[in-house]
Amino acid sequence: MTEIKGGVCAPKGFSAGGIRCGIKPSSSKKDLALIYSDKLCDAAAMFTKNIVKAASVQLTQKNIEGEKLRAIIANSGNANACTGEAGMDAAKRMVQSIANESQIDTSEVAVASTGVIGVPLPIDLIEKNVSVLKNSLRSDEQGHLDALEAIMTTDIRKKEIAVEIEINGVPVRIGAMAKGSGMIHPDMAAANNSAKHATMLAFVTTDAAVEKSALNSSLRNAVERSFNCTTVDGDTSTNDTIIIMANGEAANAPIATGSADYEVFSNALEFVCVSLAKMMARDGEGATKLVTVTVSGAKSEKDARIIAKSVASSSLVKAACFGADANWGRVLCAMGYSGVEFLPENVNVSFKSEAGEITVCENGGSVSFSEEKAKEILSKEEIEILISMKEGSAAASVWGCDLTYDYVKINGDYRS
Amino acid sequence: MTEIKGGVCAPKGFSAGGIRCGIKPSSSKKDLALIYSDKLCDAAAMFTKNIVKAASVQLTQKNIEGEKLRAIIANSGNANACTGEAGMDAAKRMVQSIANESQIDTSEVAVASTGVIGVPLPIDLIEKNVSVLKNSLRSDEQGHLDALEAIMTTDIRKKEIAVEIEINGVPVRIGAMAKGSGMIHPDMAAANNSAKHATMLAFVTTDAAVEKSALNSSLRNAVERSFNCTTVDGDTSTNDTIIIMANGEAANAPIATGSADYEVFSNALEFVCVSLAKMMARDGEGATKLVTVTVSGAKSEKDARIIAKSVASSSLVKAACFGADANWGRVLCAMGYSGVEFLPENVNVSFKSEAGEITVCENGGSVSFSEEKAKEILSKEEIEILISMKEGSAAASVWGCDLTYDYVKINGDYRS
Repeated sequence: MTEIKGGVCAPKGFSAGGIRCGIKPSSSKKDLALIYSDKLCDAAAMFTKNIVKAASVQLTQKNIEGEKLRAIIANSGNANACTGEAGMDAAKRMVQSIANESQIDTSEVAVASTGVIGVPLPIDLIEKNVSVLKNSLRSDEQGHLDALEAIMTTDIRKKEIAVEIEINGVPVRIGAMAKGSGMIHPDMAAANNSAKHATMLAFVTTDAAVEKSALNSSLRNAVERSFNCTTVDGDTSTNDTIIIMANGEAANAPIATGSADYEVFSNALEFVCVSLAKMMARDGEGATKLVTVTVSGAKSEKDARIIAKSVASSSLVKAACFGADANWGRVLCAMGYSGVEFLPENVNVSFKSEAGEITVCENGGSVSFSEEKAKEILSKEEIEILISMKEGSAAASVWGCDLTYDYVKINGDYRS
Repeated sequence: MTEIKGGVCAPKGFSAGGIRCGIKPSSSKKDLALIYSDKLCDAAAMFTKNIVKAASVQLTQKNIEGEKLRAIIANSGNANACTGEAGMDAAKRMVQSIANESQIDTSEVAVASTGVIGVPLPIDLIEKNVSVLKNSLRSDEQGHLDALEAIMTTDIRKKEIAVEIEINGVPVRIGAMAKGSGMIHPDMAAANNSAKHATMLAFVTTDAAVEKSALNSSLRNAVERSFNCTTVDGDTSTNDTIIIMANGEAANAPIATGSADYEVFSNALEFVCVSLAKMMARDGEGATKLVTVTVSGAKSEKDARIIAKSVASSSLVKAACFGADANWGRVLCAMGYSGVEFLPENVNVSFKSEAGEITVCENGGSVSFSEEKAKEILSKEEIEILISMKEGSAAASVWGCDLTYDYVKINGDYRS
């Protein structure tokens, strides 16, 4: 597997574009994006489990039932959530407008929105600019970058990746973009499940030929180990959406579940999703650090993930990371209220970064360690909290960030 | 019911005291407290459900099994949690020292600790000063205040209350003190349950004669509707403890479960616990506001409480309260990921304070409202988020606070 340029435009047969139609108050920021495939794609998606779902989520859940897509249209600056019937009408008109423009069926269009909740979507601005949007499509990296810029809200960093792998000697590509900085605590399920909401959007394209069931299971496994293992503020949004489109242009023999090809493809997709998830955590609102919590020696991967997410979500642990304070007691505390049963006396905790590694807790109790060294380790931009449990052999990692003054500042008055 | 002075010393037959023995780094702050009854009391207690429990919690859970107590000894500045066998040994010596000093059985002594986790408790300092502690006992309000001061950590405000009620014409008193400012998300269960942890301590005294079963159920109901409905930072501590001692000095006919007297006593105890819980939320680390979330029209009181706690715990809602930003979409979002099933289109939300009340969401959607008026309402020190659901007739309130720069500051380097 090699990383390549181009994002969602890297795989054959995909183009993308992004423009400003005027949804965002800022006078210059792009706010309308389109990802387009020359031919009809097999598609799979997952959505927030939040009971309160944006109109765009509800409509895309319906359109994805056919498991076929040609286009994804997305806007930033407005979540089109909690906007009643008018919101659903706006989502439908958004889909209709690009379907008409492209002369494709509305069922082949997915729609996504992100931004403030509860404000009516100015659909007229979108309809007025949809042909400009269509004409902005490019199959090169710039098209990808324009679309990516158009889905960003409080994001500071661009979240994108593309890889090339070989399926039976045939080169196959996977490209992706994501947005997400706040209201990030994804808990996504397949379209047919009841679904939650946290504003992260991720769009993945591939020119691989993949059987529908394989595409679905591969996506679920990747999301379970990536986005669903990420937290910024514990708030699961109303708009979380991840969509993958596979157009088969690479002309490989269709990938079937359980095959060796499936493993290769699934590992690559997981790598892509994990990479984006880590970028999201690192770019968490106000974050100064990426905090990776890894639990090993757990009874099951699920237990490990629940414990790691509890620690990564703890306001006290996050604040201690910000202060580079080796307050390991808060780590054990957060493990203890995770809901997973375990023996505290089996727990070891150490902190790690490029500055080194230091054990701060052994067998659930204190060990003498150098506060200065711990502070040096925790002062780096990427830190790890390593927890070992002696309860079993399962492990999992969760990606989060520190809690800072800027998080409070950004969210104290988000709408103005 | 009338509020009176005196705290835990208000009921007949109780005395209290507090001294400095040197656990806290500060050179002046009290850190060792004692609450004492002239005669043996019936007692009930509840403890954190955190798997990781302080040694003091584990020992008091054992001592409370006899449901009889004479004394509560408590220290601040050190949680005596995650300190292994040495921690349990220290807790036992703490109990032994005051038992010897008072010539009572160790099974009649409860012990509680609060402060930093994972640091060995300097038990020698406690043993050295235990006779000074015993001699500091006073049956007047000053004794209560000395003890209260000695259990405070990051608390800024004193949390205390005392009330007098009439049981069958006999005047009966209930007095209480509490501490708790950070690591506050209590989830307490009776001693025999498996238990979580969040550092809140509450000690209640009463001169009422109450049958054991009545004392237990009355405490459980009160805690369920007070401390377990309070959150500052979502972190359920390793030391949360509430203990009630009833010495029967009021000489009323013993209160039996289900009687009219039981209702009177239970309502008074609930009032006492709710009052302390609200003081705790208002005094949350860095908090500038008390935020009361009330859900009505829910299918069950449990559903209402889960939804209200989800909203009060949301970092985004808390930050919006700090910024006086009427971001009601975050309220619906937090309701939506609470885990309770409901119809968003049945939800109305309004904000209320001494400046007035304003409806910001009707039937799950936006309504036009004055942003200026909303800002004025949300700028007050005590604000309410009122949620109605049209799903049933149950209601519940949860008390929380805003998320501020100072919360981050206080917890960025708690130990120094």
